[in-house]
Amino acid sequence: MEMYRKAFLAYLDKQKNKREPENLYVPIDYIMGLGGKRIRPVLVLMSCDLFEGDFMEAMEAALSVEMFHNFTLIHDDIMDRADLRRGHQTVHKKWDLNTGILSGDALMIMSNQRLEHYSGEKFKALISLYNKTALEVCEGQQLDVDFEQMLDVPLSTYIKMISYKTAVLVGASLKMGAIIAEASLDDQKKLYDFGLNLGIAFQLQDDYLDTFGNNDFGKKIGGDIIEGKKTFLYIKALELSNDEDRTKLLNLFSAEQNENEKISEVKKLFLKYGLDALLTKEIEDYTMMAFKDIEGLSIDSSKKLTLKNFGLGLMNRKT
Amino acid sequence: MEMYRKAFLAYLDKQKNKREPENLYVPIDYIMGLGGKRIRPVLVLMSCDLFEGDFMEAMEAALSVEMFHNFTLIHDDIMDRADLRRGHQTVHKKWDLNTGILSGDALMIMSNQRLEHYSGEKFKALISLYNKTALEVCEGQQLDVDFEQMLDVPLSTYIKMISYKTAVLVGASLKMGAIIAEASLDDQKKLYDFGLNLGIAFQLQDDYLDTFGNNDFGKKIGGDIIEGKKTFLYIKALELSNDEDRTKLLNLFSAEQNENEKISEVKKLFLKYGLDALLTKEIEDYTMMAFKDIEGLSIDSSKKLTLKNFGLGLMNRKT
Repeated sequence: MEMYRKAFLAYLDKQKNKREPENLYVPIDYIMGLGGKRIRPVLVLMSCDLFEGDFMEAMEAALSVEMFHNFTLIHDDIMDRADLRRGHQTVHKKWDLNTGILSGDALMIMSNQRLEHYSGEKFKALISLYNKTALEVCEGQQLDVDFEQMLDVPLSTYIKMISYKTAVLVGASLKMGAIIAEASLDDQKKLYDFGLNLGIAFQLQDDYLDTFGNNDFGKKIGGDIIEGKKTFLYIKALELSNDEDRTKLLNLFSAEQNENEKISEVKKLFLKYGLDALLTKEIEDYTMMAFKDIEGLSIDSSKKLTLKNFGLGLMNRKT
Repeated sequence: MEMYRKAFLAYLDKQKNKREPENLYVPIDYIMGLGGKRIRPVLVLMSCDLFEGDFMEAMEAALSVEMFHNFTLIHDDIMDRADLRRGHQTVHKKWDLNTGILSGDALMIMSNQRLEHYSGEKFKALISLYNKTALEVCEGQQLDVDFEQMLDVPLSTYIKMISYKTAVLVGASLKMGAIIAEASLDDQKKLYDFGLNLGIAFQLQDDYLDTFGNNDFGKKIGGDIIEGKKTFLYIKALELSNDEDRTKLLNLFSAEQNENEKISEVKKLFLKYGLDALLTKEIEDYTMMAFKDIEGLSIDSSKKLTLKNFGLGLMNRKT
């Protein structure tokens, strides 16, 4: 992984915009420079390499997905009214709303433009995948916004939301590398499914760690409860609880009260219905599905192990 | 023109989204349904027809440019804090900021997606032109935003702003039709230049009519003066006036005072320096350049006349 990441960062470093108008391009360099784990571009490169492609040839696609991801961060931060991103001011906070909207728009176009490096059927396949994924990411974000106003969110819609908002881009990153390496359509699909399932498992694990994690997680434990977010745990709790507990949960989520008390009360309810175990099981199921997708790939077993190790590393949050 | 418009409207009518999530797609149908002259898609179809292409084959590209144009309207209306668009509420006003941002993003992706109808070199050429143009439109919008904070705007930068913000999409629409009809690269370029020059002439005429027009224009005369917009007239007035008049103009633009008085005072200054004639000359120059671009096209003279008549109709605001 580290090799791909370093190669990508070196490539990214050469991309700094010296274009006019400055007010459009400086915020783009700013967000692209804020760091992050660069998981998506790494996946593009790794996947291309797995299928015997020249991973340097996948660099423009890697840049494309990272740029697209950063475009979503700029606009999502506006929609979430977030002040901070990776410990720094968000774009609309450091500049203003108009800059956030417009730099985001430009970054999205630039990310699509990166795919012009490719040609023929490969180009067509990449653009189609990009557009389909990009639209799904918008739909996922819209579902997330919609959830704020909904009392009852069906679990299937929740899974769709996290798939679209996050997991499809993980799947698409892997598929892009496979397209560039000219892997078979069957391999492309399996690799995509691997990314999708792993992405869902990762997001569900986010829900778990936010409530049951320890301080290694790096975020404040119980944040989802305080924000009243409709996560897997909340949705399942409403579904499984008796009338009394359901009323209690709804009250807890809407009432103003001491934060630590609130977290502790809600957690007690979650545990009463065994939701920690249920969610753990769900995470395992998606992880296992992801690993099963690997099995069917037409690559040798040492490479399958590389993919599996990447998956394990991600789920252990060490990647 | 009317034939192309009708064909486009019939095609558009079949496109209504029945997709989920509703909150994402209903605003898109709303803005696409607000009407407008549909000049850009008409240009795509006309241009394809001029080069003996089947204009029905250009329909998806026509839809693409119209969708892209409407995406820019949604986001521009947010940036301009506009409440009304074509006599109806703007998207962010009718819904909210998040809906405006996200529906706009989705519409931009959907507009790019429409080009997937084409294949091979044609597809590549269309996507490249789309992305280049889309990024220029963002740059034009950024320049427009920047101008609000600038005291002195060079005329060349102003021309660049109106080119990028509006005229490049007119040129690109014409070029797309030519690409689909497999016109020569030379014809593609000339047609693009025709659209670009005509687009600039049209925007400059907007400046003229806003200050010197009569009520047929459909907007309040003097709106640019009241808003303190840095138009051709303002920029040239600052450049040509003596110190006394320059101070007067700057004061008029910054002072709070009776609107009609302000308009009348500023107009007097513009006329003193012959700016009405100067701007008329500039509009004529760009229109003539556009007509010269037509001459070099490898189409027969009756078709050149069609293009010229379209240009004349547009400049007489009858199209």
